[in-house]
Amino acid sequence: MEIIESVQNQKIKQIAKLHNRKDRKKMNQFLIEGEHLVEEALNSQVDIEMILTVNADKLTEAMVASSKQQYEITFKVAEKLSQTESPQGIYAVCNMKDMNDIVMNRVIYLDRIQDPGNVGTIIRTADAAGLDAVIMAKGTVDIYNDKVLRSSQGSVFHIPVVEMDFAEVKEKFEGTIYGTSLDSARDYKEITPADKFMIVLGNEGQGVNNDILSATDENLYVPIHGRAESLNVAVCAGILMYHFVK
Amino acid sequence: MEIIESVQNQKIKQIAKLHNRKDRKKMNQFLIEGEHLVEEALNSQVDIEMILTVNADKLTEAMVASSKQQYEITFKVAEKLSQTESPQGIYAVCNMKDMNDIVMNRVIYLDRIQDPGNVGTIIRTADAAGLDAVIMAKGTVDIYNDKVLRSSQGSVFHIPVVEMDFAEVKEKFEGTIYGTSLDSARDYKEITPADKFMIVLGNEGQGVNNDILSATDENLYVPIHGRAESLNVAVCAGILMYHFVK
Repeated sequence: MEIIESVQNQKIKQIAKLHNRKDRKKMNQFLIEGEHLVEEALNSQVDIEMILTVNADKLTEAMVASSKQQYEITFKVAEKLSQTESPQGIYAVCNMKDMNDIVMNRVIYLDRIQDPGNVGTIIRTADAAGLDAVIMAKGTVDIYNDKVLRSSQGSVFHIPVVEMDFAEVKEKFEGTIYGTSLDSARDYKEITPADKFMIVLGNEGQGVNNDILSATDENLYVPIHGRAESLNVAVCAGILMYHFVK
Repeated sequence: MEIIESVQNQKIKQIAKLHNRKDRKKMNQFLIEGEHLVEEALNSQVDIEMILTVNADKLTEAMVASSKQQYEITFKVAEKLSQTESPQGIYAVCNMKDMNDIVMNRVIYLDRIQDPGNVGTIIRTADAAGLDAVIMAKGTVDIYNDKVLRSSQGSVFHIPVVEMDFAEVKEKFEGTIYGTSLDSARDYKEITPADKFMIVLGNEGQGVNNDILSATDENLYVPIHGRAESLNVAVCAGILMYHFVK
């Protein structure tokens, strides 16, 4: 197996670019780090271009069989590729999936949610609840952000996550669209969930955009019985998704 | 107003000790940081011993009226008191409440949950859902941890949060105790919630302790329909609490 020792190596420079959203889009690839995520990607039939590891013993047969290229790297190179404080020593460059033909019967739509931990947790919950897809407005955090990958616990590889404007998704979607709002909305427990549904969740501070709220079929809220001002958006998403799935 | 300029000041040294759980217990006090939390504490009738600020203009009349002592401090002193990377410049030393006589009709019990963000979010959700109290096993993260305070968004001041062994709480509690477990448990949606309930949630990796699970009245699970291995514990808590409150 070839060893890459220099952080100046052209391949490494290219891969390090995958830390940036723009370059991920341009190259149609993303970078994952750590044994757990690499295993998850492998088990989820992600198209793996390349695996890089500081420790060749960590390369399983399955990893070799499922990736086009493998390299050993030095600790210095690992540090350059890492987005965490303690580099985990194994990396995979993955090709993004083509998301044109996703099923959209039961989906959640994220309108500019900012916190990577919230987005990752919502993707994990949508996967657990058995939804078809997570759709995100532009301006929502990038799913290939390291923190999103981590908090999704591999669910980004299980359920399609796509970026789409609300206007576009509204045109394509054939079910009932439920916004979330505190104003002129109904208690979610009063609703008999439609079979095909889309739940729209909004930005942590500002909630769902007003233009979207006025284009939904119905708007819901999760009641606050105590003195908290609001619910965490990922908790709210979990309560609604599990209410909607049968 | 007296100005404290030295990090060697005895008062400051004492207050900085409140960063440690042991000293918080010994002194029966905790330290909060930032305008938002100080305001929350004030609005929640927390017993405030002392307010310290780098900017005397930030001291409102209400703050002065509701605290026994006020001090101006230098930025260096603020840095010593801070637990965040960018010190927020205003601090309050608060006296812990006596939690002996709490109502316990609808409660959540946390068995060794480790992540401060999860614990804070669960406290916030318990407050929102209108529960009476959050009870924590020893070994659960300290609620006066800065990250817990932050993610609870002030709810630690709204709802009693107490530390109690399961044996003790089981003796005192008069309703139905529901554990959460994936083994020999029932789908939570099949349950008609009791009026007086306790929901027990467990450690992120290990779940609820087996001794506790065998001492509950019934054990529940939130079904996984997709390919996620599990739900985040704060999301799971939210789904169950909102299912149980009417």
